[in-house]
Amino acid sequence: MRSAVLRAGRMVVRDDVPEPVPGPGQVLVAVKACGICGSDLHFASHGDQMLAAGAEMEGMPDTMSGIDLAADIFMGHEFSAEILEAGPGTDTHPPGTLVTSVPVLVTSGGLDMIVYSNSTVGGYSERMLLSAPLLLPVPNGLDARQAALTEPMAVGLHAVNTSRIERGEAALVIGCGPIGIAIIAALRHRGVENIVAADFSSTRRALAATVGAHLTVDPAQGSPFHQSAPAVVFEAVGAPGVIDDVLRRAPAGARVVVAGVCMQPDTVHPFFASAKQISLHFVFGYDPGEFAESLRAIAEGEIDVTPLITGEVGLDGVGEAFDQLADPDLHCKIVVTP
Amino acid sequence: MRSAVLRAGRMVVRDDVPEPVPGPGQVLVAVKACGICGSDLHFASHGDQMLAAGAEMEGMPDTMSGIDLAADIFMGHEFSAEILEAGPGTDTHPPGTLVTSVPVLVTSGGLDMIVYSNSTVGGYSERMLLSAPLLLPVPNGLDARQAALTEPMAVGLHAVNTSRIERGEAALVIGCGPIGIAIIAALRHRGVENIVAADFSSTRRALAATVGAHLTVDPAQGSPFHQSAPAVVFEAVGAPGVIDDVLRRAPAGARVVVAGVCMQPDTVHPFFASAKQISLHFVFGYDPGEFAESLRAIAEGEIDVTPLITGEVGLDGVGEAFDQLADPDLHCKIVVTP
Repeated sequence: MRSAVLRAGRMVVRDDVPEPVPGPGQVLVAVKACGICGSDLHFASHGDQMLAAGAEMEGMPDTMSGIDLAADIFMGHEFSAEILEAGPGTDTHPPGTLVTSVPVLVTSGGLDMIVYSNSTVGGYSERMLLSAPLLLPVPNGLDARQAALTEPMAVGLHAVNTSRIERGEAALVIGCGPIGIAIIAALRHRGVENIVAADFSSTRRALAATVGAHLTVDPAQGSPFHQSAPAVVFEAVGAPGVIDDVLRRAPAGARVVVAGVCMQPDTVHPFFASAKQISLHFVFGYDPGEFAESLRAIAEGEIDVTPLITGEVGLDGVGEAFDQLADPDLHCKIVVTP
Repeated sequence: MRSAVLRAGRMVVRDDVPEPVPGPGQVLVAVKACGICGSDLHFASHGDQMLAAGAEMEGMPDTMSGIDLAADIFMGHEFSAEILEAGPGTDTHPPGTLVTSVPVLVTSGGLDMIVYSNSTVGGYSERMLLSAPLLLPVPNGLDARQAALTEPMAVGLHAVNTSRIERGEAALVIGCGPIGIAIIAALRHRGVENIVAADFSSTRRALAATVGAHLTVDPAQGSPFHQSAPAVVFEAVGAPGVIDDVLRRAPAGARVVVAGVCMQPDTVHPFFASAKQISLHFVFGYDPGEFAESLRAIAEGEIDVTPLITGEVGLDGVGEAFDQLADPDLHCKIVVTP
């Protein structure tokens, strides 16, 4: 079958990928749509750094330690798919059911993350395996492309839940890429009444306003911290220097949710955080309940993800889509429809 | 009257300080005991850096902007004192009552912090002014020297309260100077059942065990993170590199309370915190309720501060005490009894 795979830093299409065979508890599905995530772009460019950083860290299992960058890598973790066939003795929804799932494959050997893998096929493929107990049927006839955005929107919900923000508290979202946009949509979904969004790109600011920001700010024109005194700041940039700038400018007592992932060493002034008793909550991913709530909210029309989808490509277009996503003015989310 | 003041980086004794005169709502007190705080040592050596850092920061009033380092500076914010005389129309406890107070003086112009000031006299003096509404009488005949430790023990209580630690969660305290020791005592006071304390100094490790650590670790002999999987880590060192080491080694989901105050720029790897969803809670000071609880717990014998007091000097001995406190093996807390 056909898959777009990462090979030597570029996305290339293979047509000789072995057909996946579902084992017990697994389901073979036809991918209908898969969003391209910023972390995939980052892994394509800086996979060696990401693997090194994972290996250097204690305190959690290193899920990436077995990855060989010299071999092809399957990616694609924001997917919706149609059930084709269940594995032996596996009870699941009928063939043809549109589903989504957290990107985890249960195997006889344990859990495989469907994120970066030399062997576990991801959503940039015609077909892939999913785990029957993790499947969520897509309700209300929701379009497969919108259902594929369940995953990134769950990231935004998780960031907002971690902040414990209340409706009357002011929020500032720094960076309006896909993660920042998901956070703004989740804040609006939670009924937060004062959402300021900051980005240098006018295209991204316009999208922020569309999904629910009450005010958008171009940081080149002045500090977004001068527009309000945010109780909660969401850092959704993930570049060196941003955290320190937030610590310097945030009001005393601010809760800072760090949703951007900065892979480089970064310099901060802890004194700013100490003097103002700031808390920094680093977030990553979501829990299964947040994933399910994300799907429900999208399917019920409570979160409208259609403005986020700015492009659609087939497997042959994945490489060019990766290139285009580097420009913040061109795209928010490109969906692959294999 | 006599005061020990900071002059050109050294503590010197003056005997020509004008007698403070209590205004309405104020009380003249005779200082009975005043602990020397590590922040006073730091201000004596690096006051210029501290003032510059305060000026560089937005989001809170800069309470130190008016300080002139070329003039004498009064310090001493961990005090107990005996009431001498109330200001005009001020109703308070009878003369002779032993009291303590949060280090704030209410004046007709606003609030003066009794921490570093060219004009507001602190606890390294024979007499000082306090605010009648803020006075807490010292109960149970508690010794004035122990009552003076209300303030640093409140810092420990505040750090522990911020962590929201539960009794069954494991705690790791990194650094067993006065702040770390106060945190350990507060953890024990809260009933926490697994407290690991780490410090390079054997003297400090012994004190940590005395106040309640269940296990002490010399980091030169191995990582303290290998002794348990702490749910909560207290950083009580305040030196560059410590926060990053905690992020690298802490288990996934750890709550890190940063009680040490690092005045220098510091390098961290945000990726470690992101991948493990760590939260960093920077703490500073305490609230009035925590201050009152600290006094009550000491006076009731629930927290025993006597092992912390390793030295006592008069005003003439303050300069030498500052020098001695630089050596972690010599002293924990030196109390000044003017």
